[in-house]
Amino acid sequence: VTAPAEGAPEFGPESLPYGVFSREGDAPRVGVRIHDDVVDLAGLAHALDHPDAAVFAEPSLNALMALGPTRWKDIRAWVRSALTGATGVSEVVRRHRVTLDSVTLHLPVDVADYVDFYASQWHAGNVGRIFRPDSPALPANWRHLPIGYHGRAGTVVVSGTDVTRPRGQRAPREGPSPGFGPSEKLDIECEVGFLIGTGSELGHPVPVSEARRHIFGVVLLNDWSARDIQAWEYVPLGPFLGKSFATSISAWVVPFEAFDAAHVPLPGQDPPVLGYLDGPDDEIFGLDLRLEVLVNGHRVSAPGFRDMYWSVAQMVAHMTVNGASLRTGDLVASGTVSGPERDTFGSLLELTWNGTEPLDVGGGAGQGFLADGDLVTITGWAPGPDGGRVTLGEVSGRIRPSPSR
Amino acid sequence: VTAPAEGAPEFGPESLPYGVFSREGDAPRVGVRIHDDVVDLAGLAHALDHPDAAVFAEPSLNALMALGPTRWKDIRAWVRSALTGATGVSEVVRRHRVTLDSVTLHLPVDVADYVDFYASQWHAGNVGRIFRPDSPALPANWRHLPIGYHGRAGTVVVSGTDVTRPRGQRAPREGPSPGFGPSEKLDIECEVGFLIGTGSELGHPVPVSEARRHIFGVVLLNDWSARDIQAWEYVPLGPFLGKSFATSISAWVVPFEAFDAAHVPLPGQDPPVLGYLDGPDDEIFGLDLRLEVLVNGHRVSAPGFRDMYWSVAQMVAHMTVNGASLRTGDLVASGTVSGPERDTFGSLLELTWNGTEPLDVGGGAGQGFLADGDLVTITGWAPGPDGGRVTLGEVSGRIRPSPSR
Repeated sequence: VTAPAEGAPEFGPESLPYGVFSREGDAPRVGVRIHDDVVDLAGLAHALDHPDAAVFAEPSLNALMALGPTRWKDIRAWVRSALTGATGVSEVVRRHRVTLDSVTLHLPVDVADYVDFYASQWHAGNVGRIFRPDSPALPANWRHLPIGYHGRAGTVVVSGTDVTRPRGQRAPREGPSPGFGPSEKLDIECEVGFLIGTGSELGHPVPVSEARRHIFGVVLLNDWSARDIQAWEYVPLGPFLGKSFATSISAWVVPFEAFDAAHVPLPGQDPPVLGYLDGPDDEIFGLDLRLEVLVNGHRVSAPGFRDMYWSVAQMVAHMTVNGASLRTGDLVASGTVSGPERDTFGSLLELTWNGTEPLDVGGGAGQGFLADGDLVTITGWAPGPDGGRVTLGEVSGRIRPSPSR
Repeated sequence: VTAPAEGAPEFGPESLPYGVFSREGDAPRVGVRIHDDVVDLAGLAHALDHPDAAVFAEPSLNALMALGPTRWKDIRAWVRSALTGATGVSEVVRRHRVTLDSVTLHLPVDVADYVDFYASQWHAGNVGRIFRPDSPALPANWRHLPIGYHGRAGTVVVSGTDVTRPRGQRAPREGPSPGFGPSEKLDIECEVGFLIGTGSELGHPVPVSEARRHIFGVVLLNDWSARDIQAWEYVPLGPFLGKSFATSISAWVVPFEAFDAAHVPLPGQDPPVLGYLDGPDDEIFGLDLRLEVLVNGHRVSAPGFRDMYWSVAQMVAHMTVNGASLRTGDLVASGTVSGPERDTFGSLLELTWNGTEPLDVGGGAGQGFLADGDLVTITGWAPGPDGGRVTLGEVSGRIRPSPSR
């Protein structure tokens, strides 16, 4: 069910994601993807005297993201109109349209803070059962608040960037000393990332009713995780080096507005949440994003984002309820997207039950975690308006061996 | 012992910290503090045709910080020479020298990632005894690695900024529902922050032998903490909203070079650390920084940084051993500086033993945590060359009440 319908081309006018690209000799600039082409928005906007032309000449989306929801909507309408030929500018567009394989894609955003949530009850429950078999699967706080923590913004990389296997400490096996070396449990986390466009003021919480106005767009995200490093280090202050070596995001950022037809009710929250996390269905909603995880081209999972317990509006309200501000470029990730069924789990930790039930991921013998050379790709789409489809930017990365020293 | 010797003026030529300041109608720029004056380095460097004049005209120290250790040293020598009149430019300096009370001080750095360690065995042991009385005081990993986590870079504020009491969830008291409201256990953490000047390459760990070359300077830091929010949220992914509402740093950044005379051996590490954390004494050293915590002008503690278990070089080596890169502007904080004695504990959590043994902090009746209106100030100094003293920039903040809604 996750492949686009036959004959339905991907990245049609329902998607129109923004990215940052360059061609040899040219500075990086903002483009929009249509099918397998990129339209140079800096060039197009300049040629057509668009008042926001300057934001497209930037080497990141941040200036565009800072403009706010009214101008995001206007600009998207202008882009769609230009690309669908409705305004008689098709010859101008053609001059600024190049093929995807002729460009280099860059990290689309200067990431401000990177916050990672833990919003799937299925994922959190699986992790609890694997790592803390003698405790309740979900921590006592889990259904009362969307648990989150800060990740490393400086190591967010664009899709296609190789990922070096991290080295680090792991728990002692024999004797009192910890082990050390390349991670033996290198994993993925299939996630969805929300990029904050407009910031907020320190000391002023963003209510659920306002959260949506701050969200610029959506990326797919792979939160690479070294389970052995993480398991040894994470008590009591949380994951650190088990995650901080790399987080990959898609090169293409699909505007949040594109998902208006993909809003779905949450699966249900019980017990009821506190007031600051509560709101009507048009503020607190799930998203019907259909994801797919491929390892070396083999599909290993098909998580559905509609199974997530917490809504993105609740995440934003929670992370600001203490007065913490948002900034343009903040990356708010959902946490691993896992559903109730085995073939919808979003990490190898879950898919192989901590390596005890190896998968065939095309790397030779059945394996529990990632081998050097493995290529991981996450793709996704969502229902669009009028039966169309919104394609999400894919995120991929290949594992390189640890450095020898 | 923590007050400067009588007659020894603070911020003498041993310190010469950099900061960012502005005067009415002028853009923020880089200055250096000498006693109670600020010298406009943008103006001075321009007047004297200094080749690095452009970095001083920036509204943050980041461009200066990116220049690297050789030029940091040269620039500091040039500044000292100019300010001590050795080069016959005293008239030029006088034209660019203004009093501290005539300027506005700004956040001195665009913070990239904020990493907070937990490097005092006394603090970690106290917290363990208070929060986890049935477990060993130090977690099993504590003596094998400097535990750290990522904090929120976007809410780092400059000394003097008011801090709004955060609201948030706390553990259920009666019945199943969590509480909600303004934090009732608002605390401080007296810390030292190290600012990373030159970055490193993704995938390439920074060894202890190289760590020092990446460290530009030192700030005092107050990692404000809401203990009730933190206690409820922190399992399993670590502190989040209990910390993210504000972290204050001093406006003045003292160059790391200024502390050469304050290097001291670490108290001792047992068991021995793994190889990547090991090195000779001139790479792995403590710092003899004498700190003082004042609440409403009353001295409540005098922590000594030389009591810290882990060295800053080990923190840098650890946080990059997995290949994570450093960036200009990364803020690496020590964690709460506590010594073995009660009057050297660096948090009210410890000083009042979780509120059970209230202190008189000048707010009226004895109290365990901070009241609205309380003013917290952290100061510090270190031995300088030739019997002189290096003054650290102070960090202060006053508590404002939570917003009413």
